[in-house]
Parts: sequence; structure tokens; C-alpha cells
Amino acid sequence: MNVVCEHGGDWTSYADEYGSLPLDFSASISPLGMPEAAVRAATDALNVADRYPDPFCRSLRAALSSCHCIPDDRIVCGNGAADLIDRIVRTVRPQCALLLSPSFSEYERALSEFGCSVRFWNLLEENGFRLTEQFLDALTEDIDLVFLCQPNNPTGVPVSPELSEAILKRCTEMHAHLVTDECFLDFTADPDRYSLRRFLPEHRNLTVLRAFTKTYAMAGLRLGYALCSDASFAARLQACGQPWSVSGPAQAAGIAALTDPDYPGALRALILKERAGLLEGLTALGMKVIPGEANFLLFRSEKQDLAERLRCRGILLRDCSTFFGLGAGWYRCAVRTEDENKLFLRTMEEIL
Amino acid sequence: MNVVCEHGGDWTSYADEYGSLPLDFSASISPLGMPEAAVRAATDALNVADRYPDPFCRSLRAALSSCHCIPDDRIVCGNGAADLIDRIVRTVRPQCALLLSPSFSEYERALSEFGCSVRFWNLLEENGFRLTEQFLDALTEDIDLVFLCQPNNPTGVPVSPELSEAILKRCTEMHAHLVTDECFLDFTADPDRYSLRRFLPEHRNLTVLRAFTKTYAMAGLRLGYALCSDASFAARLQACGQPWSVSGPAQAAGIAALTDPDYPGALRALILKERAGLLEGLTALGMKVIPGEANFLLFRSEKQDLAERLRCRGILLRDCSTFFGLGAGWYRCAVRTEDENKLFLRTMEEIL
Repeated sequence: MNVVCEHGGDWTSYADEYGSLPLDFSASISPLGMPEAAVRAATDALNVADRYPDPFCRSLRAALSSCHCIPDDRIVCGNGAADLIDRIVRTVRPQCALLLSPSFSEYERALSEFGCSVRFWNLLEENGFRLTEQFLDALTEDIDLVFLCQPNNPTGVPVSPELSEAILKRCTEMHAHLVTDECFLDFTADPDRYSLRRFLPEHRNLTVLRAFTKTYAMAGLRLGYALCSDASFAARLQACGQPWSVSGPAQAAGIAALTDPDYPGALRALILKERAGLLEGLTALGMKVIPGEANFLLFRSEKQDLAERLRCRGILLRDCSTFFGLGAGWYRCAVRTEDENKLFLRTMEEIL
Repeated sequence: MNVVCEHGGDWTSYADEYGSLPLDFSASISPLGMPEAAVRAATDALNVADRYPDPFCRSLRAALSSCHCIPDDRIVCGNGAADLIDRIVRTVRPQCALLLSPSFSEYERALSEFGCSVRFWNLLEENGFRLTEQFLDALTEDIDLVFLCQPNNPTGVPVSPELSEAILKRCTEMHAHLVTDECFLDFTADPDRYSLRRFLPEHRNLTVLRAFTKTYAMAGLRLGYALCSDASFAARLQACGQPWSVSGPAQAAGIAALTDPDYPGALRALILKERAGLLEGLTALGMKVIPGEANFLLFRSEKQDLAERLRCRGILLRDCSTFFGLGAGWYRCAVRTEDENKLFLRTMEEIL
């Protein structure tokens, strides 16, 4: 049995070893914690947890419909965004997909499991891992499906609104389906500017992925959703995979989280301020930091054992050496609260 | 968007329509509710729900390992048994599978989504839907995967221990993988007699499916597990599909449920007594009842609108007309508490 998690956030193995909770900079989750209303709603939902959850997440989809001004028959909820990535691949059934590298590894896992051949577009360090217009030439006739992570994980670099619009246009011409994974978009200064959500009504080949996991700190409950460009595609997403993928407490917490109007703004203000401080602090420590716009920062260090050294001191860091296109010495750290970030920088300084 | 659930347990659409909770005889779940320790553990787990759940369910697998006397590297947990059915199909990658009819529809859904051709073995009403030895002849060379539901859903009829052992032997000879879905086994009078669990050490082609969903009334939390005959198969099951399929509260509730030593015995005693009463009551009302051994009973009525009529009176019944091999007039009712079963029979009497 594999006991090494290739993703961040594997805090339980630390807790088992040390008997205490680590400070987790390896998972990029809202440092404000779950909204109180969401915790209460999930607790209440445990009282009816002997019953099956609503397989269609009707109330949650109605709440999301109001929130995004999109008909509820174009919204599909899943057991985290990873469940929806799987469902999209099952529904599109692509022969050939185009991915960025480095990027979130779950796209490739899902595609490979369904026998799809995967082509990678390498983001280059000399361009600051920014996607350039040359990418449009890679969108050839044989591509059926494209995943864009906006902003990208683990670089934090967004695709410019002009280029992502051009990519959508090109995908439409080439009859390719475009998925923009906007799970980290709420942490950027101007989410609406970067989101492709506004193009949903006029395209039939676009899916926008969002998650409560990161924005509302609900990683342990698992809740993501897809905004689809047409109802028939949404119905196919819903019908494939298992019927009760989203638990009752997750549905209840999601509905409650959306009723907290102050949370997203407070979160964004915190992340913007703290990200700037963390970028400055890491740079002062001699790290090469990529100026990303999400709630994490990618950086390179001369030390290849930084993650192990921090772990001994109770801090988890995401070792990015396993990402295609990166390698040993690359790390990703979350942006957390002021005190936590200071402790992180102080510990880094002591180690270095 | 499809808004009709083909399975039982769709109580939320009733609650939305009537503003109250129905008495749910359509889902076959322990009527004792979640063990108190499990509710407490799930509530506590909400305090760390901002963190990712353990992707490998290490503590839960350790607890299951003690419980079943099986090494933890042969146990894989999933988001309900449905998640594991999917993972088994992905891992075995069968060309041709053999299923019973009628049986749980999720086997066929998963197989079809992965392009597997499905052959059905029809269980006949004249045999009381009992599986006969002739089934062994259907286990031909071209079959890669067999799903047996033990006892079967929706009939409640178990395969005899002698025949299920012969099926396992035949599957081994034919190089087919056998999955016994024992999600309802805890409700039978003698689970150990019917379980194929004891054959796991000496076979490499056997997987036993179990779930907390029904036995511990945790349908809303989603938790199932697979007991595998070898560690490498378990590792492949774990690696396919999404990494964080089981939520933190579900893992915590599962661990806590296993610490309640009295629950399974009390549940079994209740079900045995109440099933007999329900069988008698339904027969007295003129229903043709199949004498199943699970926590539900399959019966036929002259009335084809029984489910709608009961729904108007606040009781959900599983209409089984959509099962292959059944048809209009067939229904499945759960076995619940004495008071609930009496109310169900009284309401049935009024309607008829």
C-alpha cells in the first residue's frame, strides 16, 4: 500500500509520528478556517446522516445558481474538484488532451486512467512560467480537451484575460472542450477579470471548475462544482460516476458558506497583504520566488532538503520536485495568517 | 438535469414538496441510527475539516484490520461502496462481466461506463429468485469479472455457502475476478456463514465489499471498504480514482462505530424479529412476499401505484419496476423499528 502522498496536505502522517498537529504550509487552503455558519450546518446535517444525501444536490445547486447567475441545470456538484475532473474526462471521452506543465497532476491521472493520450505544453522558467500566445499553435485539430488552471498550480501565475479568451475561441474553432479550473481564483486581486464564467452562455464547449475546498477551508468535507455551458452536458456529468458522491454535511456546509457575505472579501484582503509580505521575506532569504497571484508561492532554494528540515520543526512544505518541468529545490508554500507566515519565515531563516 | 432518482432514499425531494421528513422505507438502512460515538467523532472531525482528509485512511484501515483480522495493506476505503465498485472496474478493466438480474444497478452502470460488455444471469421468480448451480455453466472462459450481491438486492435472497464457494473455485479456474458485495450481510442471521471473507488469504481473485452506510446508518456520510485478496491489487484500487475520496468526518465516524461492540448484535436481533413480523403482515395483506434474509423485503402487489399512494401519506417505498427481471407491481420495503413497521402495515391496509 502506497503511504506517500504526492500532494500536499498529508498532515495525518505527521500527527501520527509526532502526536501533534503541524503548521501546514503544504496545502493551500483559506487560513480563516470554515465559516462558522458552515460548521453549524454540517453539525446539524449529522442528525440526518443516517439518510442518503440528495444525489442531485438540489438545494446547493439552487444556492450556487443565485450566486453565479447561472441556471441550476448547468451546475453539477462533486466530491471535491477531483471528482468533477474525473466526470469531465468520462463525459468528453477525449482521444488527445493538452495540458500545461507544470500543473495540477490530477488532470493527467484522470486522462491516463481513461486511456487518453496527453500532450504537454511546457511553461518556461525564463518566461516566469507565464503562458504565451504560442500556446494557440498547440491547439491543433486532434486536441479534444484542454485543462487550464487559472491561476496555475503550483506557479500561481494566471493566464491573461486576453489570452484565455483567445484560447476559448481557438478551442471552439477546433471543436475542443476547454476546462478552466478556477479553484484558486478567489484568492486573486480581481477574480472576475480572470474568470471565463461570463462566456458560458455563448459557448457549448466550456466548463468552469470551482471548489469550496480552498476558498471556504472545507478540504476535509470535499466539495467542488462545475459550471457548464449547456444543460445536456451538465446532465451527462451528473449521470456518470456514482450517484451519491457529495455527503450530506458537505452539501449543508456549502449552502451555509454561501450565506456569509463578508468571508470572500476578508479572505482576499488577508491573502493579498500576506502574500506580498511572504514574497518579500522569502526573497530576502535568498529564495528565487515566482510572483504568483494565488494563496501560495512557488520558490526555488539551494537546499534540497528544506521540506524535511521544516517538517522536523513542525511545518509542512510542498516539495515540488515531482512536478514535470520543475525538479529538486522547488517548493510551494501556502499564504497563511500574519503570525503563521512570520513563524514560517523565522523558521526558514534559522534553517538556512 | 435529471431530477428523478432511480435508487431509493430520495427523501429530500419529498421534504422539499411537503416541508417534513418522510418515513423512509425505500432505503435499507439500520433503523437504530448512527452509533452515538460515531456522531460525536464526526462532529469533532469538523474542527479539523479545513485540512485535507487522510488520502489513505490509515487509522480507519488499522481499525478495520483488527476487526476483520486482515492486514491493513489489503483494505481500501471509499466514498461509499459505489466508489469502490468504480475502482474495481477501473482496476480489473474487464472485457466481459457476468451479473445477476435483478440486482443492484450500480455494477452495470460502472461496467458500461468503462466499455465492458455485460452478460446477465436471470434469477427466476419460480425459483424464488434463488441462484442455482446452473450458474456455474455461465462462468465461461471469456468472463473477466463477476459481481455477486450477498444477500442479493432487491430480493434479499442469499447464495448458499456451498454454491458461493463453488463459484469462487470456478472463477479461479477461469481466471475471473469475483466481487462479493456483502453490504447487507450484517442483517442476516449468520453473516460468517455466508461471507467469503475467510477465502481471501488463499485466493488472488477475490474482493469482498462492505459498507458502513447500511450497517451503521451512515448513508449521508458515505463510507464503504473493500477487503482484497492481495496487497498489490489493493494498492492499485487505492491509486486509481481521486486521492481524497473519503471525507474526514466519515473516517472519524467509521473508526468510532467500530468501537461500539453492542451495536451489530442489537441491530441483528431487531431486524430478525421485525423482518418476520413484516413478512407475516404483508402476506396477510395479500402481497406475494419473497422471504429474503436482509433488512428489506421484496413483494408484489396488484396495485401499480402503491409507491405514489404511500408517498402522499408520508411513506417512501422503493418501486422496483425499473429492475431488469421484475416489472410493474414489484416493491421493496425496508425493515425498520416495531412502531414504524406497524405504521407502514396499517397505512398499507388503509390504501388497499
